Amino acid sequence: MTEKNIVISVDAMGGDNSPRVVIDGLAIAAKDHPDIRFIVFGDAARVRPLLQEYPELEKVCELRHSPEMVHNEDKPSSVIRNRNTSMFMAIDAVRTGEAQAVVSAGNTGALMAISKLTLKTITKIHRPAIVSIMPHRFGKYVMLDLGANTECDAINLAEFAFMGEILARHALGIAKPKVALLNIGSEEMKGKDEIKQAAQLIKSSKMGIDFIGFIEPHDIANGVADVIVADGFTGNIALKSIEGTAKQITRMIKDAVKGSLLAKVGVLFMIPALRKIKKIMDPRLYNGAMFVGLNGLSVKSHGGADAFSFSRAVDNAAKLVRQNFVPTIKEEIDRVDLEELQTILYEMD
Amino acid sequence: MTEKNIVISVDAMGGDNSPRVVIDGLAIAAKDHPDIRFIVFGDAARVRPLLQEYPELEKVCELRHSPEMVHNEDKPSSVIRNRNTSMFMAIDAVRTGEAQAVVSAGNTGALMAISKLTLKTITKIHRPAIVSIMPHRFGKYVMLDLGANTECDAINLAEFAFMGEILARHALGIAKPKVALLNIGSEEMKGKDEIKQAAQLIKSSKMGIDFIGFIEPHDIANGVADVIVADGFTGNIALKSIEGTAKQITRMIKDAVKGSLLAKVGVLFMIPALRKIKKIMDPRLYNGAMFVGLNGLSVKSHGGADAFSFSRAVDNAAKLVRQNFVPTIKEEIDRVDLEELQTILYEMD
Repeated sequence: MTEKNIVISVDAMGGDNSPRVVIDGLAIAAKDHPDIRFIVFGDAARVRPLLQEYPELEKVCELRHSPEMVHNEDKPSSVIRNRNTSMFMAIDAVRTGEAQAVVSAGNTGALMAISKLTLKTITKIHRPAIVSIMPHRFGKYVMLDLGANTECDAINLAEFAFMGEILARHALGIAKPKVALLNIGSEEMKGKDEIKQAAQLIKSSKMGIDFIGFIEPHDIANGVADVIVADGFTGNIALKSIEGTAKQITRMIKDAVKGSLLAKVGVLFMIPALRKIKKIMDPRLYNGAMFVGLNGLSVKSHGGADAFSFSRAVDNAAKLVRQNFVPTIKEEIDRVDLEELQTILYEMD
Repeated sequence: MTEKNIVISVDAMGGDNSPRVVIDGLAIAAKDHPDIRFIVFGDAARVRPLLQEYPELEKVCELRHSPEMVHNEDKPSSVIRNRNTSMFMAIDAVRTGEAQAVVSAGNTGALMAISKLTLKTITKIHRPAIVSIMPHRFGKYVMLDLGANTECDAINLAEFAFMGEILARHALGIAKPKVALLNIGSEEMKGKDEIKQAAQLIKSSKMGIDFIGFIEPHDIANGVADVIVADGFTGNIALKSIEGTAKQITRMIKDAVKGSLLAKVGVLFMIPALRKIKKIMDPRLYNGAMFVGLNGLSVKSHGGADAFSFSRAVDNAAKLVRQNFVPTIKEEIDRVDLEELQTILYEMD
């Protein structure tokens, strides 16, 4: 095995078509990133033959047998007690320092629970969040929380804003990201109490965030904000509404074209233009939600990801490892006084 | 003035381009519905010349001067004290029985507040909701609450389910509508407490609802549910995410086509197919959110509606008047024992 700069541990058994899709995805990622070495956890008898199909990948993979796996219906409370699953073992490799990031397409709740237990939340941060990078009209934005925390208070939201801002600077290269709170109106009086309080907290704190106020979901696509902050319930509802609508419209256009010879001819002319849109909008490009707020990098691939899509989740993990994201976010959090949020909140009441 | 079956009162001053758009919209609606008579409230000096442009409309309109109007930034708490606005006077015409429905493109919060104050909530119902009819893959569905109630408890949600079911039967003609609660997962353990409790309430009650459980936003378009129930915050977030994404994709396709002569040729071939999609998806077709749970019909047009879109809101109002919707929903609510919800909830704790 040659010396590699980045080591990523992989849960080969997570997702709908594992381990097939995972290994096919790793083969793509290995080609894209000659500097990555993988530690692959899974049922060795099932994974080994798949690895053997890719001699180049095999060279940069270390396969470790895990006797069990996490299933979609498993509860977080039970999975954290089983250290023999491929998911647990893959995450644990980040804790021990063998790997700098873990990628899994398994059960989100389980991945979050084990990641929290194993990697631990960064000191000063109350709760980690699930974050994704997504496309808007003129570029990309960071959105969090996408489902880790169903209920959030104002302090959680302010901490998400802070972590999202750091991610936008590093992952998107935006020097001074604009941060907004997702709400049902842009006026100050609109929305839930915790959102209104969070707005006050962010404005009054010394976190130094360029806070632009509330944003409504239909304005996300206009690119006015680089970081969108919400509780996990709201973020998840918005994310799935956006994804569902994009899918529905694509399907409707396909159906309409299928039913008409004329339209089929038209599509031929439009291929270059449509390709441009796909290059921006293809949801597979944005696969790989990250957990921020932990002492280690844990990346969640979509359960229904195909090989290309899974490779993009690995790509996301690799980028953040190269950018030294986890050490940086810990340093930045160390430098600020997050306790002040509690003080500001007390004074507001 | 000829005898007309339906009388609709109209706030001519609401919306971004009032009273121009409102009167243009009424001209379309008057052509579509020869059986409607309008009572139009607004600044007579501004509205009269517009009405005079449409002699046919003028014949079926009674213009009543209102000295003031509700502005977008007005707070609900202040607008309910001013009986001289076009919005207040238009709603009051429903209370007095002069009109069977009111249509306004003004400030949603104000319209809800005045409608609640004037028309009163139906006995047994704790809170009215904003409801809309929208397109899914194979037909239409009813969704509520879209923003009237930022926070809802389990009983509110169960009542919304009940009212939504009645609306789906009447407005969509579905004999046994499938009802679902909007949530971030379809498993029973997922989501917020009030949503989980509402599911139990609906299942345990004698309301006779065909309850299919939780639905995630990306499944709405698949048409598995005829009625989608959420608190007003979540419903509003989902609605605006859906609308925003649809708009963004349409704009991206337009932009891509603009930039390519080849694509422009392609679009020509695709026009009949695209027209089919527009016939289903055009958001203007679905303009006209209704307030359910009140002793009178109040319909909210989008503030940015164009004339055609405004005419559709009138169309929505007219349909529900013809179907005798308000008397029917009051009768149905009268027949059921909604108090049982409270009893079931106590027993659950």
